[in-house]
Amino acid sequence: MRVGIAGYGNLARGVEAAVTNAPDMELVAIFTRRDPASVTVATDTPIYAWDAMADMTDQIDVMVLCGGSATDLPTQTPQVARLFTVVDSFDTHANIPSHFAHVDEAAREAGTLGVISCGWDPGLFSLARLYANAALPDGVDYTFWGRGVSQGHSDAIRRIPGVADARQYTVPVPEAVEAARSGSNPTLTTRQKHTRECFVVAEEGADHAAIEQAIVTMPNYFADYDTTVTFISQEELDANHAGLPHGGSVIRSGRTGLAGEFGDTIEFSLQLDSNPHFTGSVLASVARAAYRMRQNGQVGAYTMFDIPPALLSPLSAEELRAHLM
Amino acid sequence: MRVGIAGYGNLARGVEAAVTNAPDMELVAIFTRRDPASVTVATDTPIYAWDAMADMTDQIDVMVLCGGSATDLPTQTPQVARLFTVVDSFDTHANIPSHFAHVDEAAREAGTLGVISCGWDPGLFSLARLYANAALPDGVDYTFWGRGVSQGHSDAIRRIPGVADARQYTVPVPEAVEAARSGSNPTLTTRQKHTRECFVVAEEGADHAAIEQAIVTMPNYFADYDTTVTFISQEELDANHAGLPHGGSVIRSGRTGLAGEFGDTIEFSLQLDSNPHFTGSVLASVARAAYRMRQNGQVGAYTMFDIPPALLSPLSAEELRAHLM
Repeated sequence: MRVGIAGYGNLARGVEAAVTNAPDMELVAIFTRRDPASVTVATDTPIYAWDAMADMTDQIDVMVLCGGSATDLPTQTPQVARLFTVVDSFDTHANIPSHFAHVDEAAREAGTLGVISCGWDPGLFSLARLYANAALPDGVDYTFWGRGVSQGHSDAIRRIPGVADARQYTVPVPEAVEAARSGSNPTLTTRQKHTRECFVVAEEGADHAAIEQAIVTMPNYFADYDTTVTFISQEELDANHAGLPHGGSVIRSGRTGLAGEFGDTIEFSLQLDSNPHFTGSVLASVARAAYRMRQNGQVGAYTMFDIPPALLSPLSAEELRAHLM
Repeated sequence: MRVGIAGYGNLARGVEAAVTNAPDMELVAIFTRRDPASVTVATDTPIYAWDAMADMTDQIDVMVLCGGSATDLPTQTPQVARLFTVVDSFDTHANIPSHFAHVDEAAREAGTLGVISCGWDPGLFSLARLYANAALPDGVDYTFWGRGVSQGHSDAIRRIPGVADARQYTVPVPEAVEAARSGSNPTLTTRQKHTRECFVVAEEGADHAAIEQAIVTMPNYFADYDTTVTFISQEELDANHAGLPHGGSVIRSGRTGLAGEFGDTIEFSLQLDSNPHFTGSVLASVARAAYRMRQNGQVGAYTMFDIPPALLSPLSAEELRAHLM
């Protein structure tokens, strides 16, 4: 299975590592919209200018798109799906239906296949919600994120005047997680579910109080949360907050029995040292499934909801039944 | 979707409740090997003698087999698969490959479809192992069961002379669960992972010390575990130990990154008031998928590893993408 990577940032480094370590995959090319000579990749994979991919359709079985959901993937995934079977991690939940439609149209016209919105949320968390809803139709879903770095919230802080650098952690409230697990089906507000911890490096002479006020009152990002702001040095940020850990839990509690006489709780949780490396590892497994589905004659757009789980694994169906069932 | 149930015990009552509460399913018949007049079912579903099913192939789309794995399902599932698309909960892990082969042969010859080994272990726990292995190929799996009632271990105690009744709980050792979650990839012995709690009703005049000794030294069942035995009255057993709660956790910890520089932990856990009702609810969702796969032209044997998750849900693909992704 010959894999390509389109776009080279944090997520791409995760895909690069996962594909390189997979015994059944070969990473044959990385494509960038920057000058390829200016990009250093972690392995000895050749790097090409973006437009070179159009001449390499016979050398790559699956292209993994590693751009951002805001502006890259909405155009890139349909475009690249006209050349290759593709996998992406499009994560703007509200726009998944329209993105799906665009990729479906492109892939059907080209006779390729695209799996969109892969990773852990959307991705493994979506699957946890689906399986839990199927097994426990009468119930309530909860999703908690963290403790982990939100890159979007970190970026929002960095845009405040006087801020040199920042790192924002999303933190689930332990009492809310316990309440969700309890089976009492509590109604939890945004503020009750998560807190936000901000570590901020201020520019020399900046007004700390004004920065803190700008953060905690920021609509959508922070105003609806209990937010703490801690000013630290750039050295401390680099030393203690360089990683991109993340994780979270999907919890569904519900009832079984003719009259709902029994209570059940289902929980799926992740603790990740590196969000982009784990997401990249999931994308690599989906690339395997996408290749097999295309080999099997399927075309058009899919999500992880449509993938028979066995196709994600390098093991045969017999090995899976014997060892993992 | 017209569903039948073959065999009527605890698990069947769970399937009966789940199918009755599913808006897209109709429970049309229950079959028993006993005298149908001697069996009272929880709903107004008609009950028939086992052999009557052969004349009802045009009235039932999927038959859910609710017999036991030791002696019932190995013969029943292939036999019934010659008449109907079937779903079972065969859970003797070591014999899954041969059971699969027998059901596959019968279903292919008859042009039907069979999904075997559904429920939570095997079933949702198997899926958790598969997804976690695909996402995190470099790692270690742990499965913990409980706190919950093991019916096999309870039965083993009841066979000891002087025992009137018994209930056995399998209990995961909290320190072992924490060690598995820690990412340190510990090697855990059978004794380190679970303890066994036995509540025993002794017959009048029975030798308690001899019963306790017979339990804690019983090979396979108890000898390899730290086992506690508590003698209680039948009234106390009936009042406090009548339920069939169960649950457990599948934990995989592993590494991502080119050189395994990042650690991750994936966990899937269940807490169930009623093991048979939850298992029955999973079987009902698999019956839905089996029906759709058969409608789609598929025949032969499958497991939950082969089912695109979307097929388990009553929601359309569009609804799933919009609401659960």
